[in-house]
Amino acid sequence: MNNTTIRQIAGFENQEVTLRGWLTHKRSSGKIHFLQLRDGSGTIQCVAAASDLSPELFSMIGFLTQESSLAIQGVVRADQRSAIGYELAVRNISVIGSSVDYPITNKEHGPGFLMDHRHLWIRSTRQHAILTIRGRISTYIRNFFESRGFLNTDAPIFTPSSCEGTTTLFPVDYFGEQVYLTQSGQLYGEAMAKAFGKIYTFGPTFRAEKSKTRRHLMEFWMVEPEAAFMTLDEDMELSEDLLVEITTRVLAECRKELQILERDISALEKVQKPFPRLHYADAWKKLRELGSSIAEDDDFGAEDETILTQQFDRPIIVHHFPSAMKAFYMKKDPDNPRYSLSMDILAPEGYGEIIGGGAREESLETLVAAIEHHKLPMQDFSWYLDLRRYGATPSAGFGLGLERTVAWICGIHHVRETIPFPRMLERNRP
Amino acid sequence: MNNTTIRQIAGFENQEVTLRGWLTHKRSSGKIHFLQLRDGSGTIQCVAAASDLSPELFSMIGFLTQESSLAIQGVVRADQRSAIGYELAVRNISVIGSSVDYPITNKEHGPGFLMDHRHLWIRSTRQHAILTIRGRISTYIRNFFESRGFLNTDAPIFTPSSCEGTTTLFPVDYFGEQVYLTQSGQLYGEAMAKAFGKIYTFGPTFRAEKSKTRRHLMEFWMVEPEAAFMTLDEDMELSEDLLVEITTRVLAECRKELQILERDISALEKVQKPFPRLHYADAWKKLRELGSSIAEDDDFGAEDETILTQQFDRPIIVHHFPSAMKAFYMKKDPDNPRYSLSMDILAPEGYGEIIGGGAREESLETLVAAIEHHKLPMQDFSWYLDLRRYGATPSAGFGLGLERTVAWICGIHHVRETIPFPRMLERNRP
Repeated sequence: MNNTTIRQIAGFENQEVTLRGWLTHKRSSGKIHFLQLRDGSGTIQCVAAASDLSPELFSMIGFLTQESSLAIQGVVRADQRSAIGYELAVRNISVIGSSVDYPITNKEHGPGFLMDHRHLWIRSTRQHAILTIRGRISTYIRNFFESRGFLNTDAPIFTPSSCEGTTTLFPVDYFGEQVYLTQSGQLYGEAMAKAFGKIYTFGPTFRAEKSKTRRHLMEFWMVEPEAAFMTLDEDMELSEDLLVEITTRVLAECRKELQILERDISALEKVQKPFPRLHYADAWKKLRELGSSIAEDDDFGAEDETILTQQFDRPIIVHHFPSAMKAFYMKKDPDNPRYSLSMDILAPEGYGEIIGGGAREESLETLVAAIEHHKLPMQDFSWYLDLRRYGATPSAGFGLGLERTVAWICGIHHVRETIPFPRMLERNRP
Repeated sequence: MNNTTIRQIAGFENQEVTLRGWLTHKRSSGKIHFLQLRDGSGTIQCVAAASDLSPELFSMIGFLTQESSLAIQGVVRADQRSAIGYELAVRNISVIGSSVDYPITNKEHGPGFLMDHRHLWIRSTRQHAILTIRGRISTYIRNFFESRGFLNTDAPIFTPSSCEGTTTLFPVDYFGEQVYLTQSGQLYGEAMAKAFGKIYTFGPTFRAEKSKTRRHLMEFWMVEPEAAFMTLDEDMELSEDLLVEITTRVLAECRKELQILERDISALEKVQKPFPRLHYADAWKKLRELGSSIAEDDDFGAEDETILTQQFDRPIIVHHFPSAMKAFYMKKDPDNPRYSLSMDILAPEGYGEIIGGGAREESLETLVAAIEHHKLPMQDFSWYLDLRRYGATPSAGFGLGLERTVAWICGIHHVRETIPFPRMLERNRP
């Protein structure tokens, strides 16, 4: 007996196979039961005709319940009406695991209920599509950096210090000493860029922010490339290339999933180089013209990002943010130190910031002054300062938030659907 | 001027290029300075001849210090004596960042000193080789699972419960509620396998073990595949295939790094299928014959693993460990419930366990009884039990510890060198 999967079904036309999966829907019309079977790799219609089966088996099939796990033996038949081109003419069915009163039914469920049942909700067609795209985007990102010679490395999760103050950090008792869960691997990325030239880290990062917005998770995945000798211009180009690569591959390889999500394909097709590039000062002026009340040299709020990105049909790069709002390690523009060699990429359609990065300050003296100015504990950054004591170089990089990127690509409202088990302000289960 | 990297130097024979990197060694013989430049992608000898340069420049080169960052302009010359086949005839050098009294010199340094300077130590030839192999192994692992249709997913880091008691967990205050850092994504992996069929997670995991051995890290990376309907036999075969794939690719693509590490290549070449498979009872008998004092149905100690693996020239699979020593979710052998459908793979040459896995219990009743028996909080596992209430299936998987695997492949003694910034009992910096 050929055990196979729905994804591979085309290779078995007119052959008898066994599929194993879960029953998602059932419909009966007198002498025929139509069963929708999903096995994780796809969904197929299985047709159980009374004329082909014993009366006992045909009757049993009538009692099968949603999300029962089944082994279905049958013959693969080409069928033009099928989305996958095939259906299965059932010869035998055995129940592997029963399912009584599956909680997620065809009726509307509230988000709280669905999140409580996240371990089951991920079986639904829509969540399957989102998380499949998430998995593939992760792979596209890795392949992109590998093909450009960036070495895959890992920054530590336990970090003794923080780049930007400790108020949004999760502290952990590390055998009597307080450490924090990382918010960014960047400082470590710089050390590794000086050993390997070009590196990327891709791991979970943590923010203990008391925010309950549709864009915030306490635990999210971030890819952070860093390259020695890279300039801000090269950094912008790299991030632009990455986003074009992601959308191009999603459009080529995730069509089925985008259809399920009813994603506007044309919006993704517009993600082509070059992205509009705006100096912060110009973006600021435009925002004020558009009615924003953004203060001088202030960071963009979510509302500002929405207003601004609605002016364009593709992601935009805002660069040279005011130095005052940026972290201590951000390099100032030598020609106008009011602004920094920083950049953000804002996704279109109101999705806001998905990339933030820039060039790092390479002068030891400037960096020491910045640490003092930010009142950060100098001792914690002694190792980081060593990167300037011993063969300092220009260095640049960025961080791309995976979940916000997936939300944008999938065209979904809330980041909670973009990660298998989201951790939010009031949600750490299941 | 052509900015390029040492890895790409072959494309520039007889052309003038600029390389940017760090000075690792310098040797002078009267009218010639020999400079070793590394740029992360490789190392090249740069030859600065007095006859080619101004007296001022030639003299300045004589004062260059270890780990200064330099831009070196020169002509690429084929040279058969060079390990990379080329050297650079220097035309000009400019200093990007100076380096005074670089702490890591040619003399012997103790491991404590080197670990304190880990951010610089990773620049050394040996650490560069180990971490390059680590990065590539991560990629080989991902490619292996992708090519077999396993979806890349992520398990949460913050987990409300633990599979195996809380004594070795790091607790975190999650807005007033206690959660723990994950020790394994497996339970979540099972939920995802029932949604996606075959999945793998690859992320950091945490153990708050007060162990100071050469095999223990507090924070380490683990890949965990899980597949619905997979049997123990298929699980063993999958893990065997993975290890053969890793060693095959390392041998094909990381020769230079293995040479630097003086790795015994022949030991890796022996990693071929089939791996010897031993039932626990047979392994136990053999251990007693070999002089171990292992108690009845006891787990193997590090010493036992060493003795046992020394009997074989390749990894070995020990299966059917006693149920009593295994976690609550491990399926018992229906033919002899004293033993479980579990397996470990032990690396040769004394490296010990690198893979642990097995089949999961699918019966709701058996699992409830096991949770009660282990005195675990039933409420925390309610969602996990749902996976048995709604369409239970056989499921199997394993976890492979990245750092132990890298230690074995690289032939190095201590896992602390297998991760960029190790976290150990008394080490959470830099």
